[in-house]
Amino acid sequence: MASEVAEEWAQGTFKLNPNDEDIHTANERRLKELIGETAGKLHTGRSRNDQVVTDLRLWMRQNCSTLSALLCELIRTMVDRAEAERDVLFPGYTHLQRAQPIRWSHWILSHAVALTRDSERLLEVQKRINVLPLGSGAIAGNPLGVDRELLRAELDFGAITLNSMDATSERDFVAEFLFWASLCMTHLSRMAEDLILYGTKEFSFVQLSDAYSTGSSLMPQKKNPDSLELIRSKAGRVFGRCAGLLMTLKGLPSTYNKDLQEDKEAVFEVSDTMSAVLQVATGVISTLQIHRENMGRALSPDMLATDLAYYLVRKGMPFRQAHEASGKAVFMAETKGVALNQLSLQELQTISPLFSGDVSHVWDYGHSVEQYQALGGTARSSVDWQIGQLRALLRAQQAESPPHPSPK
Amino acid sequence: MASEVAEEWAQGTFKLNPNDEDIHTANERRLKELIGETAGKLHTGRSRNDQVVTDLRLWMRQNCSTLSALLCELIRTMVDRAEAERDVLFPGYTHLQRAQPIRWSHWILSHAVALTRDSERLLEVQKRINVLPLGSGAIAGNPLGVDRELLRAELDFGAITLNSMDATSERDFVAEFLFWASLCMTHLSRMAEDLILYGTKEFSFVQLSDAYSTGSSLMPQKKNPDSLELIRSKAGRVFGRCAGLLMTLKGLPSTYNKDLQEDKEAVFEVSDTMSAVLQVATGVISTLQIHRENMGRALSPDMLATDLAYYLVRKGMPFRQAHEASGKAVFMAETKGVALNQLSLQELQTISPLFSGDVSHVWDYGHSVEQYQALGGTARSSVDWQIGQLRALLRAQQAESPPHPSPK
Amino acid sequence: MASEVAEEWAQGTFKLNPNDEDIHTANERRLKELIGETAGKLHTGRSRNDQVVTDLRLWMRQNCSTLSALLCELIRTMVDRAEAERDVLFPGYTHLQRAQPIRWSHWILSHAVALTRDSERLLEVQKRINVLPLGSGAIAGNPLGVDRELLRAELDFGAITLNSMDATSERDFVAEFLFWASLCMTHLSRMAEDLILYGTKEFSFVQLSDAYSTGSSLMPQKKNPDSLELIRSKAGRVFGRCAGLLMTLKGLPSTYNKDLQEDKEAVFEVSDTMSAVLQVATGVISTLQIHRENMGRALSPDMLATDLAYYLVRKGMPFRQAHEASGKAVFMAETKGVALNQLSLQELQTISPLFSGDVSHVWDYGHSVEQYQALGGTARSSVDWQIGQLRALLRAQQAESPPHPSPK
Amino acid sequence: MASEVAEEWAQGTFKLNPNDEDIHTANERRLKELIGETAGKLHTGRSRNDQVVTDLRLWMRQNCSTLSALLCELIRTMVDRAEAERDVLFPGYTHLQRAQPIRWSHWILSHAVALTRDSERLLEVQKRINVLPLGSGAIAGNPLGVDRELLRAELDFGAITLNSMDATSERDFVAEFLFWASLCMTHLSRMAEDLILYGTKEFSFVQLSDAYSTGSSLMPQKKNPDSLELIRSKAGRVFGRCAGLLMTLKGLPSTYNKDLQEDKEAVFEVSDTMSAVLQVATGVISTLQIHRENMGRALSPDMLATDLAYYLVRKGMPFRQAHEASGKAVFMAETKGVALNQLSLQELQTISPLFSGDVSHVWDYGHSVEQYQALGGTARSSVDWQIGQLRALLRAQQAESPPHPSPK
Repeated sequence: MASEVAEEWAQGTFKLNPNDEDIHTANERRLKELIGETAGKLHTGRSRNDQVVTDLRLWMRQNCSTLSALLCELIRTMVDRAEAERDVLFPGYTHLQRAQPIRWSHWILSHAVALTRDSERLLEVQKRINVLPLGSGAIAGNPLGVDRELLRAELDFGAITLNSMDATSERDFVAEFLFWASLCMTHLSRMAEDLILYGTKEFSFVQLSDAYSTGSSLMPQKKNPDSLELIRSKAGRVFGRCAGLLMTLKGLPSTYNKDLQEDKEAVFEVSDTMSAVLQVATGVISTLQIHRENMGRALSPDMLATDLAYYLVRKGMPFRQAHEASGKAVFMAETKGVALNQLSLQELQTISPLFSGDVSHVWDYGHSVEQYQALGGTARSSVDWQIGQLRALLRAQQAESPPHPSPK
Repeated sequence: MASEVAEEWAQGTFKLNPNDEDIHTANERRLKELIGETAGKLHTGRSRNDQVVTDLRLWMRQNCSTLSALLCELIRTMVDRAEAERDVLFPGYTHLQRAQPIRWSHWILSHAVALTRDSERLLEVQKRINVLPLGSGAIAGNPLGVDRELLRAELDFGAITLNSMDATSERDFVAEFLFWASLCMTHLSRMAEDLILYGTKEFSFVQLSDAYSTGSSLMPQKKNPDSLELIRSKAGRVFGRCAGLLMTLKGLPSTYNKDLQEDKEAVFEVSDTMSAVLQVATGVISTLQIHRENMGRALSPDMLATDLAYYLVRKGMPFRQAHEASGKAVFMAETKGVALNQLSLQELQTISPLFSGDVSHVWDYGHSVEQYQALGGTARSSVDWQIGQLRALLRAQQAESPPHPSPK
Repeated sequence: MASEVAEEWAQGTFKLNPNDEDIHTANERRLKELIGETAGKLHTGRSRNDQVVTDLRLWMRQNCSTLSALLCELIRTMVDRAEAERDVLFPGYTHLQRAQPIRWSHWILSHAVALTRDSERLLEVQKRINVLPLGSGAIAGNPLGVDRELLRAELDFGAITLNSMDATSERDFVAEFLFWASLCMTHLSRMAEDLILYGTKEFSFVQLSDAYSTGSSLMPQKKNPDSLELIRSKAGRVFGRCAGLLMTLKGLPSTYNKDLQEDKEAVFEVSDTMSAVLQVATGVISTLQIHRENMGRALSPDMLATDLAYYLVRKGMPFRQAHEASGKAVFMAETKGVALNQLSLQELQTISPLFSGDVSHVWDYGHSVEQYQALGGTARSSVDWQIGQLRALLRAQQAESPPHPSPK
Repeated sequence: MASEVAEEWAQGTFKLNPNDEDIHTANERRLKELIGETAGKLHTGRSRNDQVVTDLRLWMRQNCSTLSALLCELIRTMVDRAEAERDVLFPGYTHLQRAQPIRWSHWILSHAVALTRDSERLLEVQKRINVLPLGSGAIAGNPLGVDRELLRAELDFGAITLNSMDATSERDFVAEFLFWASLCMTHLSRMAEDLILYGTKEFSFVQLSDAYSTGSSLMPQKKNPDSLELIRSKAGRVFGRCAGLLMTLKGLPSTYNKDLQEDKEAVFEVSDTMSAVLQVATGVISTLQIHRENMGRALSPDMLATDLAYYLVRKGMPFRQAHEASGKAVFMAETKGVALNQLSLQELQTISPLFSGDVSHVWDYGHSVEQYQALGGTARSSVDWQIGQLRALLRAQQAESPPHPSPK
């Protein structure tokens, strides 16, 4: 008969009654209509305190699986793009100042790598969500010797809670989830910020597809990056929910207090936001157009002064001296009003006799990035290594992530 | 010669020079004094960007080991106390209203269990701290083919970072640490709040030792719970650091920006605070005096109305009907102006014929708590089970936690 | 014809069209249906950027007037209650320890006074809301020489914005409003916390009316303070909105960015929350029942040790010495195992010859509170003075608060 | 003799004693050394609770005067610069996309105007700081009839607190100050963000002076905007202090609890930070170099499409139609592959016969900005009006701001 009630829910034919206090009393009332007084046994050894937190955990573990899949989809999209465009070079910035030539893929992967940490953390949060509080009663536990391990197995939880007072009132898993979302949004916001910059007229490195930006008939060249601004703005809201819940939790005494019911709206809103934002980000990344020529044009010989120093290091000069020698070359070029790569070999040799004809390779941007072959660097082999690492991580996380369909 | 410099630091004889920009240039300068220009090789393939974040990770992994040990010490103190006082009963509260009789140990363990989640989370944070960024350079990686896996092994890190741009500018591990501390402080603050209440004249369940409270010659009976107020107040400060860092991170573009240097003060302050607070909490718990008689006196028959319903459930009545029957008894007692346990068997039998002589057991508080034998409940066997689970967790975490002495 | 459109809105007969982008284009479209192409002049010199922020300010100034009235109503309710019950004494607490006898009204007024600061601050926020941005265009201003002072007068604003770039993108007034609400909620949360404590079995000073608490048929003596827990929990949520908006604002460059549209949901949610919470608080205060006898019973002679010292001060002894003498009396009473007021005059005179027969007045709680006649103290005259000050403030604020009906 | 003690403090000769609990007991101890037991009268009717909060208010009102002066100095520097460079044009951005030509001064003033709101708010906070709690005792008031109005006049406070319980434990003025600082830092951070962008190679509008940036011998063209990154990062820290204090306050019951002592560190740190940041910002603005030619080169005819529509509006066409006509011209130019201002009069007249020879004025950027003469716009007259308004505000605030030297 319980399955008949479940069927009514599944079919959408379950009729709520104004006197039903919540889903649990509604089910008991309906069951009573079907089987009589015996339905009154349904609530035996249960309490709203342990039921609502069980419900929330059931909802969240399913939702986290969805978010986990969306996050992996985003990472996969980024890795695919990084693989496809790994021969595009553009400036790497520090302090928003042009610093060194890097691969465009290296930039994409820097954000993808950040997201893999979010993916890893989400698995940890899911592990702590997937703990069963049922059988904790209102506060003191279950007085009828219910077999909580059996309940756990039937509801497919990973473990049972250890203490009934804690079980009914702790919301660590909610706070953790909200913080997980806040940190993930910080990553997405920083990526969005970069892309907003790269999409300005001044940078002109990327262009959002029309689906993810808003134009104007009057100013067709002006593409407002609505999608990216949306991502950026939601980071604040999500963090606000995290801060709000922590403040509420912080001021509470032990055990259940009604204040705790603030948890649900926070979880629902943040889940919806994360779901939308992850999908928008995937759409943005997969449809973004890049302007290779502008990216290339933004590279200049002055970004290679460090490379010039490393040229000397490879010839045996200690780094500090090489650094000084390269500084002298920079100064010489500036004084002469020419680009650094316009200095003649003779001129360079007045600074150090170690300079020889092969110094011309230094001025090749492709050659420059290829130096960074240590793991994690911007050389092609290292970028390929990163792609391989990320693909392996995605496979591993997919294997680890439990499916969690809704429990029977 | 590097070991000679190390020795100077160890001995406290290393002399800083006003021109030393930071610890790295100071070491190089000193090495140059000892061995000449070759010291200039020290910085080869390095950058302040990857060095400072390596330093911070080295410092934090050591510090987290210390905090982990202090946290385990606190949990152990609580478990010991729970074991020693497991036969003391007092009221369990929900909504700060007296709800059901529980064991005092059950209350202690409810907080200890919360702290084991903090302990588990700290291990996860440590795992992400223990990842080596060295060899990432300023942004593009290392141009001299440094073997980062070798560096990792030598410095005893668990893994290397995957992408040099991310490695030099991500501070997830800092944000995670600050959030870890915020959530842990929330737990400690809630425990402190309970104890402040239990220590009021009105509750009179506990009394802080003199070392952890402040009296007054004029009002010797007034013991201000300074130590607990300190714990409670620090939760705000720690969360503030977490919120502040997240706001700073959120607004940054990719890669290193000087804004990131805010990370260190936050980490140092929060580490110091956590260290102090954990030790104070351990001191408070280990020296706290309890007033058993007051605890016992706070129990009353009206807290056993649910037990009366369960009595009928055990005799075969569905829970809903039993709940109603018990409600009638409560009403009858109220009407007659007597305590619930003063109703005669005859009076009870007018409500249900299932009542018989053994109903007198219901009014025994010791009997009441013993009903909650399902795992996690407040029965003695279940409290013992909790103690066993916590001791096992402490052993497991101690085994897992890496020692991390300062690297050679 | 514009008035005809307004009439349609007022009557609820205005039909929205799926192609209407927002309220402004809907109005223009409708006007065009009524009067033809001339309606195209409506948007002249306007921009969505200055229109949406004008709309928000119009909405907020009206809403703040409502909140201001609700807040004054709450304060008035508290002042009325303070006046009616000003002869009820109970313990004043510091550090949650019983400290000195005070009037119950003094406690009520302490919270009312805090709320008058919120009331004052709200007027300041309203002043900054009531500044007209219309005529700022998208960013550069209005190109058709619109008379912004005339617009201001017609829309009844207090001033016009000074700079068009700032006007379209600053949301200080939103941040200020959210912070105003956060601080006000902190006050209400602290008051709620006190009342939750005072309503415990242990304190038993107050009892919530049934409308503002939840009982149970099984435990009729247990009244869960739902209304107060609701107030307490909303403080976190409201602060979260403030924190979230600030984080979003902090990371933005100048002028309008779509991120700013997060402002509205925050304002609407917080306004609704404040409105509900203020009304609930008014209901709680006006229906709360107090238990005078329990309040009186909670006073004890040991709370009068300071009064004993002041007795000696009035006889001419310097305070430090009087403090010591009183400490000796406390110690003597403790040693003899009697209450402080049980020491005989002879015994007291062994401590100081200044003690005489009139020392018996010290042990009268009514006499004790009457000492605190300096302004702001707990003596009856001073409580009356407070009531007078608050009533005057309420009158003054009502006079100052502008009505702001919806603009024609 | 009190003046002798004051003199010792002024001279730096006051000797602290390890037994002095705080400054108040130190003064009393020293006075006793000088005049004997009568010094014991010093603490009469006082309590640490009302003394520490009086101290804090004294400190803050002085400090706020300093911050107020620093803030006015920054605004003045900005207004001076806006006046000097008011004929420099550059692009105004919305969504970080080039939108319309504006005056560089208009940008400066947009940030200056935001800061005047901070200046106004600080005066309001100061007003609430400048309220005297002395005479509130620990909780109940002053039992010796101290004349609090006299104290107020002597210590030059604006008002006295109304209720002793509230007076000793409310920290609204601290929370308000911290929020004031947070919002002010948000403004400074947004300005810093703009300048960081404008200082990139890609924008090249401004260049920080060497004193406020860090170069490198290897990359002399790379100027890391350290000063601006510092400003930007401090916004997070300051907000963190605000969030932390609010969380602490939120969880407290009435009256003094030791948790409140967290207030001082927050105030001191934020005051120091604000002082430093305001001075750095003033230094940055006064020494910043602008690149007029780059600013001019960034303007392009496509930014004038709206102006083209307004040209038609001035000839009598309703705005909507004019907007469409201008859109057609943009489309025509795009189709023909020419700039918008390259369309011939004949071509324009195919779109609308209202176009005539004077359309050439539309393509003049100077003419464009001059259209925005409505108050608050970017026309020269309107910029001058803004400058006048700000100068008047500065004068008015200076007049209003009380000097508050340290009290005698």
